[in-house]
Amino acid sequence: MPIVVDHEQRRREVAEVAADLIARLGLERVTVREIAAATGFSTTVVSHYFRDKRELLMLAYRLAAARARRRIDAATGDGTERLRQSVEAILPLDEASRRDWHVWLAFWSVAASDREFAAEQRRRARETLDLVRGLVAGALGPAGEDATAPAERLLTNIYGISMQAVFDPARWPAKRQREALDAELAAILTAAAPRRRRASAASSSR
Amino acid sequence: MPIVVDHEQRRREVAEVAADLIARLGLERVTVREIAAATGFSTTVVSHYFRDKRELLMLAYRLAAARARRRIDAATGDGTERLRQSVEAILPLDEASRRDWHVWLAFWSVAASDREFAAEQRRRARETLDLVRGLVAGALGPAGEDATAPAERLLTNIYGISMQAVFDPARWPAKRQREALDAELAAILTAAAPRRRRASAASSSR
Repeated sequence: MPIVVDHEQRRREVAEVAADLIARLGLERVTVREIAAATGFSTTVVSHYFRDKRELLMLAYRLAAARARRRIDAATGDGTERLRQSVEAILPLDEASRRDWHVWLAFWSVAASDREFAAEQRRRARETLDLVRGLVAGALGPAGEDATAPAERLLTNIYGISMQAVFDPARWPAKRQREALDAELAAILTAAAPRRRRASAASSSR
Repeated sequence: MPIVVDHEQRRREVAEVAADLIARLGLERVTVREIAAATGFSTTVVSHYFRDKRELLMLAYRLAAARARRRIDAATGDGTERLRQSVEAILPLDEASRRDWHVWLAFWSVAASDREFAAEQRRRARETLDLVRGLVAGALGPAGEDATAPAERLLTNIYGISMQAVFDPARWPAKRQREALDAELAAILTAAAPRRRRASAASSSR
């Protein structure tokens, strides 16, 4: 009797191994042969699941994004604490999240000159903005100002901190990343607060 | 009589063309054959100047950094105005600077898993920090606080704005990048100002 193979599961398995190799060796140096060796499948099987490295990179990117999303969704607490934990889940604080950043970097370097990848990157970036906007709104409370501008400012800082930390972990250990993020969070929430007070004052004078 | 060839000049010429191709097609898709076709040299000549794509990418990266440096050095004025113009020269505001960001991205994606490239990236990042620190110090004046923290905060924002603008120019046109930068500059210089006043007060009471 033939063994029933869950092809979607196996495809993800291959992409996860590929993501590890891309993070460790860089996209240029990863070959189908190496992926086959690392997964234990033949190159024929790997080629069956992925037409080319481009397709493999797309799935590796999506899996890294899904992993980050799971870390974010694991945040506990409410309001500011939930926001803080969620954005920390994006920063390259440990090996797992550093790996994801390496995969994203590989993807972005292709996306810079590839319409389809660029569209995917924009779609993900906007999803992340929506997510962060919701979390900022939760931290500001119902009387808070529109969360779009603070969320964008926060995202800009997450990108900036991460891009530096990925390449210079000695200068950007987890502690420093957290401190930079906390300072930015405090500044952003304080900047949004006066308007929030004005809004409460306006609604109570009605 | 043989024509005297300036080999260093020709090597740079090849690397400049390679940088254009990397920015337009992505590192993965650029071949020595294409670089040869674009420069008009034979593949033998191109291979003579560059052992491999890695060596080519290193020089393309350095040339892009040198170009950005020339844009920065062209800033006029003093203090805050010079700082503003200098950091604007780094942002992907036009085609030339967007091209440089594409080359940097290609380089960084390799640097994420390559010791030598990573060391080069760190060296450049620290040079940029020193440059921005000097400019921030100039904007804060002689009584200003230490410029390191404000310079780092500014750099974080430059990376963050640029990474978003490179992939989503429709959402991040030059105007918006400038506005985000100006808001950040104002916040950074204002945050540094009270301590500056305290410093003046302390020195005048002596």
